[in-house]
Amino acid sequence: MAKIGVILSGCGVYDGSEINETVITLLALDRAGAEVIMMAPNVEQQVVNHLTGDTVAGTTRNVLEESARIARGNISDIADVTVNDFDALFIPGGFGAAKNLCDFAFKGSDCDVNPDVERLLKATIAAGKPLAAICIAPALLAKVLGKDLPGVQVTIGTDEGTAGAINSMGATHTNCPVTEFIVDEKNRIITSPAYMLAGRISEAATGIEKSVDALMNMLR
Amino acid sequence: MAKIGVILSGCGVYDGSEINETVITLLALDRAGAEVIMMAPNVEQQVVNHLTGDTVAGTTRNVLEESARIARGNISDIADVTVNDFDALFIPGGFGAAKNLCDFAFKGSDCDVNPDVERLLKATIAAGKPLAAICIAPALLAKVLGKDLPGVQVTIGTDEGTAGAINSMGATHTNCPVTEFIVDEKNRIITSPAYMLAGRISEAATGIEKSVDALMNMLR
Repeated sequence: MAKIGVILSGCGVYDGSEINETVITLLALDRAGAEVIMMAPNVEQQVVNHLTGDTVAGTTRNVLEESARIARGNISDIADVTVNDFDALFIPGGFGAAKNLCDFAFKGSDCDVNPDVERLLKATIAAGKPLAAICIAPALLAKVLGKDLPGVQVTIGTDEGTAGAINSMGATHTNCPVTEFIVDEKNRIITSPAYMLAGRISEAATGIEKSVDALMNMLR
Repeated sequence: MAKIGVILSGCGVYDGSEINETVITLLALDRAGAEVIMMAPNVEQQVVNHLTGDTVAGTTRNVLEESARIARGNISDIADVTVNDFDALFIPGGFGAAKNLCDFAFKGSDCDVNPDVERLLKATIAAGKPLAAICIAPALLAKVLGKDLPGVQVTIGTDEGTAGAINSMGATHTNCPVTEFIVDEKNRIITSPAYMLAGRISEAATGIEKSVDALMNMLR
């Protein structure tokens, strides 16, 4: 049974992991017969009121505890996870990927990356293990991998500003429709736009399910 | 396009809507071509740390705001929703259904029900519109409907204690495996065990997808 690491970043599109994307990923992996190893950083995060879209001043929540809501408690501190614990890695999107795993949402291409996230991404590539990321999470890949793997291919859909920032970090952005994905065959990296483009949940699901299939095929 | 009302109760299995169940429901409804109308009560809720399972003392969150995390902000205060706004109603499970829509989790068959939830459930039945509930949410149906519709048929799986409480509220509990559902044809009510029994997400999904299919077929 293939073990797939899934890095979460909280619980909710505006300050954590995008919930629909994450559950669709978990279901597709389970139906493909994979064992899922969920993990998240044990750090504090900004809180956004998802009814109004406003940041809640003076309040933080813990990324690992909030991620545990999606994981039904079955989640590890990413600091305790090594590349030997999984066969491939999957990163769902949501602003948490750009606020809590790195701070791309605040600083763009000058962003900093959580040290454990950076460690695991680099170790996954070094071990030749496949890697998938959706929605805004490919910007995180570009930051971590762009220098050592110049031209590494990713997509976040069609947003020109984000695509430009990705290119400036050393990766190569390719436009992609929501129901498709792109593959960097050499580096074994799969990316898909998901809610960077999706207008409805079924659109996101089609691209995510194809991405999970492609990831599982890389392990066969 | 059929309009399906979905009543949420927060965001997370231990104090809100069960996230996997809710997203699987939303995806199945979207793929069936339905328009989803999400709603939740604008009330405060207890908070459970999903990493430890412990109740967080001295803290509350707002059920509508937390539900908006799953809904990506596209959700209404249930006080503003009437039975004319939808063609059928679906209630996902999670402890929120038994803590925030009613207090069955604390008081069992003596529980009280949120007045707007009770109003909408009774109006749905009075209008002859179909109703689906999964996981622990059928206990809520039993409380609201058991007196006026004695013997109304529901399932929460096989838990004897919960089944006994459901029977004592005037409904009739039938055991059901996780990948199936039961139908009360006379009252147009569909129920399925979901995470009352599911060991993995794909098991919950099979029963939920069948329930959504059955609900949509009732509208044809």
